[in-house]
Amino acid sequence: MDVSKSAVPAEIAQLDSADPLATFRDEFYLPDNLIYLDGNSLGALPKAAVARLAAVVKKEWGEDLIRSWNKNDWIGLPRRVGGKIARLIGAQEHEVIATDSTSVNLFKLIAAAARLRPGRPYVVTEIGNFATDVYMIEGLSELLGRERLQLRACESSQLESAIRGDVALVLLTHVHYKTARLHDMARITALAHERGALALWDLSHSAGAMDVNLRAAEADFGVGCGYKYLNGGPGSPAFLFVAERHQRETSSPLWGWMGHAEPFAFEDHYRPADGLRRFLSGTPGILGLSALDAGLDVLLRADMSVITQKGRRLGDLFIQLVEDRCAGFGLELASPRDSRSRGCHVAFRHPEGYPIMQALIASGVIGDFRTDLLRFGFAPLYLRYADVWRAVIILEEILRSGSWKYPRFQERAFVT
Amino acid sequence: MDVSKSAVPAEIAQLDSADPLATFRDEFYLPDNLIYLDGNSLGALPKAAVARLAAVVKKEWGEDLIRSWNKNDWIGLPRRVGGKIARLIGAQEHEVIATDSTSVNLFKLIAAAARLRPGRPYVVTEIGNFATDVYMIEGLSELLGRERLQLRACESSQLESAIRGDVALVLLTHVHYKTARLHDMARITALAHERGALALWDLSHSAGAMDVNLRAAEADFGVGCGYKYLNGGPGSPAFLFVAERHQRETSSPLWGWMGHAEPFAFEDHYRPADGLRRFLSGTPGILGLSALDAGLDVLLRADMSVITQKGRRLGDLFIQLVEDRCAGFGLELASPRDSRSRGCHVAFRHPEGYPIMQALIASGVIGDFRTDLLRFGFAPLYLRYADVWRAVIILEEILRSGSWKYPRFQERAFVT
Repeated sequence: MDVSKSAVPAEIAQLDSADPLATFRDEFYLPDNLIYLDGNSLGALPKAAVARLAAVVKKEWGEDLIRSWNKNDWIGLPRRVGGKIARLIGAQEHEVIATDSTSVNLFKLIAAAARLRPGRPYVVTEIGNFATDVYMIEGLSELLGRERLQLRACESSQLESAIRGDVALVLLTHVHYKTARLHDMARITALAHERGALALWDLSHSAGAMDVNLRAAEADFGVGCGYKYLNGGPGSPAFLFVAERHQRETSSPLWGWMGHAEPFAFEDHYRPADGLRRFLSGTPGILGLSALDAGLDVLLRADMSVITQKGRRLGDLFIQLVEDRCAGFGLELASPRDSRSRGCHVAFRHPEGYPIMQALIASGVIGDFRTDLLRFGFAPLYLRYADVWRAVIILEEILRSGSWKYPRFQERAFVT
Repeated sequence: MDVSKSAVPAEIAQLDSADPLATFRDEFYLPDNLIYLDGNSLGALPKAAVARLAAVVKKEWGEDLIRSWNKNDWIGLPRRVGGKIARLIGAQEHEVIATDSTSVNLFKLIAAAARLRPGRPYVVTEIGNFATDVYMIEGLSELLGRERLQLRACESSQLESAIRGDVALVLLTHVHYKTARLHDMARITALAHERGALALWDLSHSAGAMDVNLRAAEADFGVGCGYKYLNGGPGSPAFLFVAERHQRETSSPLWGWMGHAEPFAFEDHYRPADGLRRFLSGTPGILGLSALDAGLDVLLRADMSVITQKGRRLGDLFIQLVEDRCAGFGLELASPRDSRSRGCHVAFRHPEGYPIMQALIASGVIGDFRTDLLRFGFAPLYLRYADVWRAVIILEEILRSGSWKYPRFQERAFVT
């Protein structure tokens, strides 16, 4: 079934005509006949990234070679990219640096927080937080011993009672990777501070997709992903945030040469750099950082409050259309219905969610599946209201025809 | 002075004519009028990497999008690239994985070694080892406490007495980053084992440049750099090696989701993957890994014993020509004269080494400067004997004319 060319209802077309972000779609490569509802997992390819990578490869690597560290300021790229991300998340430019993966950055900041709050062994998170956030706490606990650091995972409804005087750090993902449920960053950070703890926010599913204001929330630390809504490319470098007030006394446990005060002095002993550069460890990955830089330049030309509004509307429309057209087929909304409590993706529960998602993908609607949920992402920068409408038409067709029951849709892939 | 076109002596030209690796030069982009003696810091651009990156960006990211994790086996890339590196360093394919930076991989393996040898707090290294190797030991010592882990740095001549019964790990760089002095990997590893310690070899300056045989040396662990002689591009992912016999009981302290037995089950608690995948932490950087993969394919078509031979001859020729033509200008060889004890670069000491190197770079001979040494790298895959000859002619001219005394050559750059 190819609905890509079929007419959309006038009221849907009208939403696209009135969309102030409509022109951004043309800044991305998006295959024909594909409705890409997975920008929350891997952002689409910005056209600018193609040109930028070609220049970095041929000119900066191929011709300028080692001289690029100075000449093309490769050495400053983690800070320059971090400074751009800062503008998207309500931070100051010197409070964010782009480096390593979200996982490695979590390790650095959990360890840093534990050092700032000695005698408080607990790190609180919610049960069902993204796996790497939880595993990194567990790994540090195993390394340091439970008397120095251990995990306290609670239901999100129990956070208030879990954050007690023995807690060093509260680590939560701002927008839940499965349900898209949005935490009240300011309220929980204030609660953590009231109990003497610090707050570390994982912005992987919110940075670049909606308004985030770390400063207003008085967040202490943050991390986030470069390859989702920042459109930095597969496995793009991640970022980390340390509030200015903590930068002097906070340090990374990964004492790499790039975090040294004078990396090219090759001193016998480690001395941390001033500021956030101390959170670098090895040599920055220039290809990944350059692609991320190009993606950020596109995003920074859009207004984040407009992005936030459009993300909510796309999600609302999807929920409304699914509930209208696919009623009776067992789909159950797993995301908050109120868009003000929701990030930029929407999840539905269905006992046969896996094969239904495979059938959707085979029909050109790309979402993904997370343990028990069909997950659909709505990247406001390049999705149209018409895409939402078409996706639901195809979902309805799959459910009505039962085509998801074909054996080929049952086969599990390694990455789901 | 442009000697790039001038005739080289017949005996030099003859060396190039007889070079079995001569055709490999054409597989790399190398700017005209540049003699690139810094492949030990950033390898040159393989033409194959340009095509590969363009395909990864436009086709795999742009068109296949999230489906590439399965369809283009992005998920397997760290192991596939690791398997190729294994063939260059005398390891089995499942003993090497490409991920993160050398610094982060050092952290993982130092921590892993400490767990395998409880009650032995010392990690031995040599004074003047590459900075990040030393700093990572110091950082872990600070994190875990000195009673669990601490640095013992000794002169390399004192290794025998430093490796005692209180040592968990000996961490050395196979080829010294400054002098190119080559350690006897088998002898030192045997010494470590005799005293009950493990041996971790940093192969950053030897992998891809010369014969390395981790298996014959019975090495326990290894790390190395992707962007030097493997030609993986700026800040390329690094690699790590864990000998098969240790894989069952060795684990990473960085418990990331990609190291979990079933990453896409999103389980509440960490369970390490079987084998080396447990040393992954975050999402693999696909752009960097793809460039590295392309660089490795070129290298794997060459014979490593031929590369080793040529590297020695290039270095010998350089030393001989410098000592012949630049005698009396204060240059003092800082590398082993015997090429069997030397890696693929050559260092000279000079009290005015920094401005001399800047004058060389301004004249199109790219080497680098490390604290007190002029360093010249001879990547056997793309350098010609004629390049060595021309570089020395230019060096001689700079020393004779004293042009390095110009004030502009004194100005220190951030990266030296």
